[in-house]
Amino acid sequence: MKFGGTSVATPQRLRAVAARLIARHDAGDEVVAVVSAMGKVTDDLLALAHEINPEPPEREQDMLLATGEQVSIALLAMAVQAAGADAISFTGPQVGIVTDAVHSKAKIVAIDAACVGEALAAGQIVIVAGFQGRTTDGEITTLGRGGSDTTAVALAAGIAADVCEIYTDVDGVYTADPRIVPAAQKIDVISYEPMLEMAASGAGVLSMRSVEFARNHAVTIHCRSSFTDTTGTIVKEAQPDMEDAIVSAVTHDRGEAKITIRGVPDRVGIAARVFSTLADANVNVDMIIQNISEEKKTDISFTAPQTDLHRVTQALDACMAEIGAREWVIDDDIAKVSIVGAGMKTHAGVTAKMFQTLADAGVNIDLISTSPIRLSCIIAADQMDDAVRALHTAFGLDATDVIEEATPC
Amino acid sequence: MKFGGTSVATPQRLRAVAARLIARHDAGDEVVAVVSAMGKVTDDLLALAHEINPEPPEREQDMLLATGEQVSIALLAMAVQAAGADAISFTGPQVGIVTDAVHSKAKIVAIDAACVGEALAAGQIVIVAGFQGRTTDGEITTLGRGGSDTTAVALAAGIAADVCEIYTDVDGVYTADPRIVPAAQKIDVISYEPMLEMAASGAGVLSMRSVEFARNHAVTIHCRSSFTDTTGTIVKEAQPDMEDAIVSAVTHDRGEAKITIRGVPDRVGIAARVFSTLADANVNVDMIIQNISEEKKTDISFTAPQTDLHRVTQALDACMAEIGAREWVIDDDIAKVSIVGAGMKTHAGVTAKMFQTLADAGVNIDLISTSPIRLSCIIAADQMDDAVRALHTAFGLDATDVIEEATPC
Repeated sequence: MKFGGTSVATPQRLRAVAARLIARHDAGDEVVAVVSAMGKVTDDLLALAHEINPEPPEREQDMLLATGEQVSIALLAMAVQAAGADAISFTGPQVGIVTDAVHSKAKIVAIDAACVGEALAAGQIVIVAGFQGRTTDGEITTLGRGGSDTTAVALAAGIAADVCEIYTDVDGVYTADPRIVPAAQKIDVISYEPMLEMAASGAGVLSMRSVEFARNHAVTIHCRSSFTDTTGTIVKEAQPDMEDAIVSAVTHDRGEAKITIRGVPDRVGIAARVFSTLADANVNVDMIIQNISEEKKTDISFTAPQTDLHRVTQALDACMAEIGAREWVIDDDIAKVSIVGAGMKTHAGVTAKMFQTLADAGVNIDLISTSPIRLSCIIAADQMDDAVRALHTAFGLDATDVIEEATPC
Repeated sequence: MKFGGTSVATPQRLRAVAARLIARHDAGDEVVAVVSAMGKVTDDLLALAHEINPEPPEREQDMLLATGEQVSIALLAMAVQAAGADAISFTGPQVGIVTDAVHSKAKIVAIDAACVGEALAAGQIVIVAGFQGRTTDGEITTLGRGGSDTTAVALAAGIAADVCEIYTDVDGVYTADPRIVPAAQKIDVISYEPMLEMAASGAGVLSMRSVEFARNHAVTIHCRSSFTDTTGTIVKEAQPDMEDAIVSAVTHDRGEAKITIRGVPDRVGIAARVFSTLADANVNVDMIIQNISEEKKTDISFTAPQTDLHRVTQALDACMAEIGAREWVIDDDIAKVSIVGAGMKTHAGVTAKMFQTLADAGVNIDLISTSPIRLSCIIAADQMDDAVRALHTAFGLDATDVIEEATPC
């Protein structure tokens, strides 16, 4: 049972989480909880670090940030004990979450959860700090964004848990964002591949990394609400008898920008030069399109997260002269809409239907990218909501009864 | 170099400590710093714990409190690096401070400071979290009050440091509290035994535990000011050529209370029953006096810290009927004044001189306790200052030139 920072932000909420753990334990289940730092603690610690050192060394930043989750687990264990049940807390290093040595975004390489098994066998509720681990040398590391979800999934794999429940402020994964599409429906079951594509294309409920880890270790995830007992969305391996919907969901992403480099000489190796420079600058390039060339010149467009734009401009400034391009321009008034579904692989005509639907809605498509189970289009930002709604209806995802007070996805 | 919570309470002060470490490093010394949690962080964490659980389990309390020092070391390492020097931080568990499993007041049983040696050899300033360690099972423990001083002394022993500098808000150990005795002098050198007795009888600069540890491992302590570069007080093994002053210092303690049990049957085992009950209740009994009995009844008086009084009353309520005593009364309007000095062992007449001095000053002595190098008297609280001044003068401790703006001891 994994709870995020909002769920443990105050003593009162910690008590509520404790009550949930105890109820499950009393029902006869063995319970392991993974928790994040309380509320905005991580951000506060980062601000303090930057006040002292504008570029905090990452080893020391991990040393600092790891305290956030350590406070949460100690307090949650106290809350469980105050309510009369037995609990024990473990830090990531203690629980045997071994990572590589890449501070601030370490990857889990091994799990030795022996102490968890012992505590469970002793009837204790086990509470583990998310987001953190240790190297084989005993260095403290953190797992980066979405790290607590990854801890939960990895631990579930390590102890062969029946299910990894990820508690969030929404009650599951939806066919689209209910704030945009009132007719959006909660997805009851989805397999890893489409869930991964959804996470990659803007659905923010589960982090890509945790879904990837779950897929690689066949961990069943139950994504559900912290506030209700309603069943949420189950993410698990595709079953032979699981009839895949052609399209499972329509996702959107307003966080990208389109960069176009104009007048690039149409020579071998130029594109490689541009994108290796961007990769060196740690820019997460998503879609890439090279337009039809004219007079030995071509235009290269790509998308990247808006948060990477300062690195994009630095990188391009550095290589423009060398590649002999004319200029580059940024358009951050764009949106990406995607349709995702494992069924798309085997159904012809999905691409045509998407384009026709957008055309009928008067939406102009700027860039296109595809995967076997996803189709994404870059469009103008102000047409995003219309596009998402039109696609949701066209692919038969609308609920029959529209929920008026929809929960945001 | 050990710095307490006040010295690292803000980013600005952390930078000042960093500058001090770097200056020493630049001067050619190998530097290990031990730091406490920032300012009131430990108290704040304890308050949070008590909000969640009125009786926080000690294992989880240690898990919680250990985060305070971990934040300090990370930030201090960042501050050193921001100033251009190289630094690395270690938690108590990482640095190999192995303790017993008595949570919240663990005792150090072993130190394996290999990683400190490696970091020093690599030219790094090493920053270690005070107050914490781990058991052989990897459980996180804390060392209790004065724990960071103990960490510093233990680490100094573990790496065979030349000296363990303990930075504080006073500039050394004084012959008496300068707030009471303007003629008090800073002690340049003192051996472990009298320093221990001073710590035990009210001089608060160094904790008893750290001095005890230093004595057992022959660690030289330099107790000095965080704010100046003045030499402070050196605490080290008595040297053959070190002429001990008869009396090194006059100490006082206003934190005790006297409890008198009246009408106790004068039978074997009664006193044992009283004090074993108090010991079970974790009361720190200091002086014990059994008055002359009359009519097979006797009065038993003892002193204990005022902070233990609620436990004293609970314990006595529980056993009064059983021992058949009449009543008990508490007097917390008392003070303990002591004279301490390794030279007392070999000089006759010190006791007589103390009593005569107090008599001359019109001070009535209530209880007396002695050790080979200390003499303590319980007197009325309102006579404490006069008594301390009279003793300081009588034993030749007054400075010739009275410092007007004396630093508090």
